Amino acid sequence: MSKPFALHPRLAADCHVLGRWPEGVLLLHRNASLPWLILVPECDAEQLIELPTEARHAVTERWHALAAWVGRHFSCDRVNLGAIGNLVPQLHLHAVGRRRDDPAWPGVAWGFSLPDASWTQAELETLTAELRKALALQA
Amino acid sequence: MSKPFALHPRLAADCHVLGRWPEGVLLLHRNASLPWLILVPECDAEQLIELPTEARHAVTERWHALAAWVGRHFSCDRVNLGAIGNLVPQLHLHAVGRRRDDPAWPGVAWGFSLPDASWTQAELETLTAELRKALALQA
Repeated sequence: MSKPFALHPRLAADCHVLGRWPEGVLLLHRNASLPWLILVPECDAEQLIELPTEARHAVTERWHALAAWVGRHFSCDRVNLGAIGNLVPQLHLHAVGRRRDDPAWPGVAWGFSLPDASWTQAELETLTAELRKALALQA
Repeated sequence: MSKPFALHPRLAADCHVLGRWPEGVLLLHRNASLPWLILVPECDAEQLIELPTEARHAVTERWHALAAWVGRHFSCDRVNLGAIGNLVPQLHLHAVGRRRDDPAWPGVAWGFSLPDASWTQAELETLTAELRKALALQA
């Protein structure tokens, strides 16, 4: 039997919860220096490559669709995809929109000390509404 | 028409070429501190999410199978997956085997200054032979 799903405390502390899909919970990193989205599949596996094939495909499709949307929506030069999990063992998949004028460019965002910046409540509501419309994100 | 495929000079300088699959060329980072494998699809797209669906699926499957093998073969605690391309625009997909006792742990390998370490010719030949056997890597 699986344990009830709960976000890892570090993800819960670092991120806003924007909604969910069948493939996982969608988080937004609280630091607004970058459009940093994180998909957290509700499962016991700690690595994407450990998921059964069908679930791995479904999660990967959702992750890629999310990343493509981030790139379009925020006019990014790149969307960095990462499945890392060295610090937070719970499976989570990063889609980090990157621009040549962002504070971490050209380095990776992971481990970089981003300048303080917060999403406003209005920005969070707009972003959530856009994700519901474009990618059928659920509450 | 596509241009003839050529490795980006930085990838060519930083890596050994171990072989190829229909989905791309397999590289091994020259720094032997970590088992750091890189798949380079022979295509014009710069991001995985830009590939046509069928090609994206095939490349993703190869990448995940490679990553799973790296994890098993090197008894890794994690395999870090990354599709970044901030410095090298040519599409390339990282599968970096990580252990809690490696010099970069728990940080990411990208941007980390790894201690000098080289693969021996014998290690390269053994690794290539094992990849041919396990994953049908081609010359």
